[in-house]
Amino acid sequence: MTRVDVTEHVLDAKRRLGLTWKAIAAALGDASPVFYTAALLGHQMLTVDEAKKAGTLLDLDEEMALLLAEPPEERGATQMMPPSDPLVYRFYELVQGYGPTWKQLINEEFGDGIMSAIDFNMQIEREPDPKGDRVKITMSGKFLPYKRF
Amino acid sequence: MTRVDVTEHVLDAKRRLGLTWKAIAAALGDASPVFYTAALLGHQMLTVDEAKKAGTLLDLDEEMALLLAEPPEERGATQMMPPSDPLVYRFYELVQGYGPTWKQLINEEFGDGIMSAIDFNMQIEREPDPKGDRVKITMSGKFLPYKRF
Amino acid sequence: MTRVDVTEHVLDAKRRLGLTWKAIAAALGDASPVFYTAALLGHQMLTVDEAKKAGTLLDLDEEMALLLAEPPEERGATQMMPPSDPLVYRFYELVQGYGPTWKQLINEEFGDGIMSAIDFNMQIEREPDPKGDRVKITMSGKFLPYKRF
Amino acid sequence: MTRVDVTEHVLDAKRRLGLTWKAIAAALGDASPVFYTAALLGHQMLTVDEAKKAGTLLDLDEEMALLLAEPPEERGATQMMPPSDPLVYRFYELVQGYGPTWKQLINEEFGDGIMSAIDFNMQIEREPDPKGDRVKITMSGKFLPYKRF
Amino acid sequence: MTRVDVTEHVLDAKRRLGLTWKAIAAALGDASPVFYTAALLGHQMLTVDEAKKAGTLLDLDEEMALLLAEPPEERGATQMMPPSDPLVYRFYELVQGYGPTWKQLINEEFGDGIMSAIDFNMQIEREPDPKGDRVKITMSGKFLPYKRF
Amino acid sequence: MTRVDVTEHVLDAKRRLGLTWKAIAAALGDASPVFYTAALLGHQMLTVDEAKKAGTLLDLDEEMALLLAEPPEERGATQMMPPSDPLVYRFYELVQGYGPTWKQLINEEFGDGIMSAIDFNMQIEREPDPKGDRVKITMSGKFLPYKRF
Amino acid sequence: MTRVDVTEHVLDAKRRLGLTWKAIAAALGDASPVFYTAALLGHQMLTVDEAKKAGTLLDLDEEMALLLAEPPEERGATQMMPPSDPLVYRFYELVQGYGPTWKQLINEEFGDGIMSAIDFNMQIEREPDPKGDRVKITMSGKFLPYKRF
Amino acid sequence: MTRVDVTEHVLDAKRRLGLTWKAIAAALGDASPVFYTAALLGHQMLTVDEAKKAGTLLDLDEEMALLLAEPPEERGATQMMPPSDPLVYRFYELVQGYGPTWKQLINEEFGDGIMSAIDFNMQIEREPDPKGDRVKITMSGKFLPYKRF
Amino acid sequence: MTRVDVTEHVLDAKRRLGLTWKAIAAALGDASPVFYTAALLGHQMLTVDEAKKAGTLLDLDEEMALLLAEPPEERGATQMMPPSDPLVYRFYELVQGYGPTWKQLINEEFGDGIMSAIDFNMQIEREPDPKGDRVKITMSGKFLPYKRF
Amino acid sequence: MTRVDVTEHVLDAKRRLGLTWKAIAAALGDASPVFYTAALLGHQMLTVDEAKKAGTLLDLDEEMALLLAEPPEERGATQMMPPSDPLVYRFYELVQGYGPTWKQLINEEFGDGIMSAIDFNMQIEREPDPKGDRVKITMSGKFLPYKRF
Repeated sequence: MTRVDVTEHVLDAKRRLGLTWKAIAAALGDASPVFYTAALLGHQMLTVDEAKKAGTLLDLDEEMALLLAEPPEERGATQMMPPSDPLVYRFYELVQGYGPTWKQLINEEFGDGIMSAIDFNMQIEREPDPKGDRVKITMSGKFLPYKRF
Repeated sequence: MTRVDVTEHVLDAKRRLGLTWKAIAAALGDASPVFYTAALLGHQMLTVDEAKKAGTLLDLDEEMALLLAEPPEERGATQMMPPSDPLVYRFYELVQGYGPTWKQLINEEFGDGIMSAIDFNMQIEREPDPKGDRVKITMSGKFLPYKRF
Repeated sequence: MTRVDVTEHVLDAKRRLGLTWKAIAAALGDASPVFYTAALLGHQMLTVDEAKKAGTLLDLDEEMALLLAEPPEERGATQMMPPSDPLVYRFYELVQGYGPTWKQLINEEFGDGIMSAIDFNMQIEREPDPKGDRVKITMSGKFLPYKRF
Repeated sequence: MTRVDVTEHVLDAKRRLGLTWKAIAAALGDASPVFYTAALLGHQMLTVDEAKKAGTLLDLDEEMALLLAEPPEERGATQMMPPSDPLVYRFYELVQGYGPTWKQLINEEFGDGIMSAIDFNMQIEREPDPKGDRVKITMSGKFLPYKRF
Repeated sequence: MTRVDVTEHVLDAKRRLGLTWKAIAAALGDASPVFYTAALLGHQMLTVDEAKKAGTLLDLDEEMALLLAEPPEERGATQMMPPSDPLVYRFYELVQGYGPTWKQLINEEFGDGIMSAIDFNMQIEREPDPKGDRVKITMSGKFLPYKRF
Repeated sequence: MTRVDVTEHVLDAKRRLGLTWKAIAAALGDASPVFYTAALLGHQMLTVDEAKKAGTLLDLDEEMALLLAEPPEERGATQMMPPSDPLVYRFYELVQGYGPTWKQLINEEFGDGIMSAIDFNMQIEREPDPKGDRVKITMSGKFLPYKRF
Repeated sequence: MTRVDVTEHVLDAKRRLGLTWKAIAAALGDASPVFYTAALLGHQMLTVDEAKKAGTLLDLDEEMALLLAEPPEERGATQMMPPSDPLVYRFYELVQGYGPTWKQLINEEFGDGIMSAIDFNMQIEREPDPKGDRVKITMSGKFLPYKRF
Repeated sequence: MTRVDVTEHVLDAKRRLGLTWKAIAAALGDASPVFYTAALLGHQMLTVDEAKKAGTLLDLDEEMALLLAEPPEERGATQMMPPSDPLVYRFYELVQGYGPTWKQLINEEFGDGIMSAIDFNMQIEREPDPKGDRVKITMSGKFLPYKRF
Repeated sequence: MTRVDVTEHVLDAKRRLGLTWKAIAAALGDASPVFYTAALLGHQMLTVDEAKKAGTLLDLDEEMALLLAEPPEERGATQMMPPSDPLVYRFYELVQGYGPTWKQLINEEFGDGIMSAIDFNMQIEREPDPKGDRVKITMSGKFLPYKRF
Repeated sequence: MTRVDVTEHVLDAKRRLGLTWKAIAAALGDASPVFYTAALLGHQMLTVDEAKKAGTLLDLDEEMALLLAEPPEERGATQMMPPSDPLVYRFYELVQGYGPTWKQLINEEFGDGIMSAIDFNMQIEREPDPKGDRVKITMSGKFLPYKRF
């Protein structure tokens, strides 16, 4: 039994029960829909309490529910790289295209270091626009300076 | 002569002249520092007027300056994938980790389609934080629905 | 249950029932055979109504039929790249051979931007020719200019 | 001296002389701009006569001009695969996404075989559209049936 | 059910029944053993009549037999590249070693074009030799010139 | 100085002097044009005598000529794999498609072993055909049985 | 049923029955333990007589035993390359490190050609050494000169 | 200046001066030709005294000679993997084919551990044989048991 | 039955029984938790006695328990490389970033050779720190000098 | 001018001047030899003052010295992955072999998160041992817990 198996059950139950990620997130607790979706897809860990709620909501057996409260094994392993799906590929393309720009501007502003992908949060919003609504993604990661030693 | 050669000259001149990307951006026009940095690194195109200003500011010969006003050839070709540099790799990691989450949430909110990486803009900001300042990146891309035909 | 499973059932049913893609397309609605074939193979999404018709026509159970009305997960994941099959490889070869030409001519005609693969349609026709009939493929994608920001 | 070197000289001369591919094509002969552009970028061969005209027009020395009338060595070798440039990548994405559809529909219409990429031609046109002009690409390749033996 | 499944059944039946490819080929029709072996291994298509004979001879159920009369899906997908098996690797090595020679000599003799791998046939023979018998392979493919357009 | 450098000089001289591979082969000795072309492109070794003739014929300096009489270093290293050039790719495709067939038929005829790619020869001929001339390639390699030990 | 399946059964039976490779080899015939181990792991072929003995010794059903007397399909396919296991990786490392040395010294001693990996044998021995026993591997392969043609 | 540069000079001087590896080895000291050849090709380190002798013998300037007495940087980096050259590829093939056999037999004889590729030596000899001389390679590496901790 | 299967059972039992690696290690013997965890995950071998204890503790059947006392097959095969999981990737990144530094400093201190990964041990500790606790990893591997021969 | 160029100059000067990394480190400041070596090889950044000292010590021109005080571009880009050099490969092997163990034990001790490779330090020491001295490497990285959001 792995998180990959749990993800499959989650997706099947969500479809069968006609649930949305927003509704699931609201039922689980105070964290954001991005966080809860990521957790149910194997990229974050729920609290034991949230995991139990998720188990009830999504018809998971106890072992599956428990797994959701453990650190996910092999984060990222289910995502093909480069991504074949156009929606995900566009983000890959942004990394390939804007990588050098991020490097230059973050170094200029903060000095030598990186944006953490662990002490990190993200929001996804709809940005209404008369020419066609936009997807707005806001990321915030702690700046981590390289330490001298 | 290619954009890669121009980028090399830009970086050398920037160092020699002690310029910052912000200062260069301010000298070139009204677009954002992200846009101008990306353009000088080969991911966007300047107007002829901006290209001339960049040529003067950064000691580029005329052919180089002109190239900056042409569509860049082979966007993304200089960025190793997967990126070896930790700063850029963290973004790659976000794609690998959050790819399935983006797919689910954008599809749930907008239907079947993608966030454009072309009709797209991005900001990079410092987010002051007592526990350590943060890098804030805001992306906005037009939602493009798959067309039936 | 994933779209890959549905595709398998679709192909088995199509063979068992002696159906053609054209006949299936005609039974589903007004969109083109290319669109409906792509949808049944996991690259497009049907309306709920079409999905139900497809379910009836191709003996799919309800969950499978429903999946056809959802955004496909991991578009493109079943196609080996480079393609080993000669029919599909020839298209890969065209990208490798004509990529630089497309880049130059589309940029010359439209400026800096891309042909959308999302706001896109395609037709496949038989072009009778005394020296041997030809496959005619017509693609049309919206030109998307890079946005300044 | 290789075709890659010639391509570099062609691109430099085109920029220096302010020429367009359309103008170059018109000066060389009756074939299409797609064909001539492909030839000058190393994917097709010119006649000796056209090669001489190209040499004069684009300031190539005699050896370079001659090379344009030889079969190009290593077609496709300059195009990164997968393409990093978004314009070319979209075509790669079409192969990945529509490959199975092409296979099914061409086999259904023509039987077992392929669309030739050699006995092949292509047009690129602007398709005016009030919602934004479109890139229209028409490909025509001879159907080649697998031979029994 | 795919051709890969059929191939597995064919190989099992051939072993169980103690058949040879030559005997199978002779039982199926007038085409060559190379052609029939390739067809039963998923690289060619049988006629409906041959497919039925193959089904009877090799104990295939009706669906399997039918599949043999369809264009094979994903030709080449079962062959690892580079091939790990020494027998097949030697051919890969010939491509790597003689590729440039084929290119030069075929272009010199025929002009710019390729040898078709579709309008193609092949024979495999034993060539008796006192120093050790030899494998003789004769390939013949139609020359296809690049078309101007 | 490596064989790759010599190959470049050979190709330049051949073009400059308007020579054909057939003419060069005839001038060098009794071996076949395939052999001499392969040797001049870095896949075979000439005798010292032939190497000197090649040096004179193709304006090579003494060190270059000498290199042609040494075992080539890194055979195959200049051929991209998979080959991007369509002419060479078709042979790669034959390996991918017919690999399993070669394995079965050679094993059936000869037992467990391989066709040598070293004790090997090859001919390339034009096969006139009213429907379009054909490229005929005849390969003959010694069968090498696996030895028990 | 493939040799991979047989290998699995062999390994399970060997463990269950507490056999060693040496004991198995001694029971099968006069060839070396290296040969018999390779055969049971899918890299060599047994005689029908040896295969029957192996079947009896290792509780294989008749079809499995028979497969051991056939040329193995896809030699090498189960070995990951580069090998992740340190024992096997060290040999890969020797190829990477000593490849150029082998090339130079074998060519110097024998002329242009290769050491056969088919007409080949190998021994593995324990070499007692006060500083720690050593693994001694002796390989012998027929020198095969490139043939002129 | 790197070992790769030195190797190039060594090979050029060896050819120009008509030296053999055996003669060079004899001139340098008491170690084996395999060792000295490996050292001059960048896989081993000479003593300072040997390096000076090599410098004199092969016309290397002082910096180059000195480099030969330093630990080589990036051992193995010049050897393509998989090797395209047939001589080196056969060794790669042996790893792929006999990897599982080495693993089983070394573990059976010595327990869990590896054959060292560092405390290692190798000989290459001509083994006369009426059916064709053979290349004999003897390797000896210290057995290193995994340590418990 | 392979070590991969055993690992799966171990992980399932550990979760079901609410055990920690520390507790398991303490129950098995005197070696370190790192060693026992590595052994249960397929990278080290237990003694027969420890394997039996592990079998009892973790509800493994006898064959599984026995496998734990055998040299693991294909060490490392379950770890994706590059690792997608951020925790493991950071170590990969250290190799990519500090590789050249390790090479220079170990060579400077010890001469030409390597740090053994076989005669090797490792500890993982919590290092309390007011600014956030740290992971402390201590590795110790025997220095192995390249042997002259 | 890039850090790669500076590294080359540093290595040449170090050899020419007969310096050791320890001596260079002592001359530059109070940080550790590991840190200074990493900085001079392109993985860390010096202070302006240290960079000037390095410039004087190692005969670098001013631009080169300045580059040492800038964030290195493309950390890790010069290290081949997988590493071909045995010294560096052993660390890669440790990641492949111990990756799952690190994941389990760090998660057990600290919860879900990673060891930072940025807020990180490392020491390399000689550990005297009668059976052969050992390389001791101590790493310490801040534990970074995944943040909920």
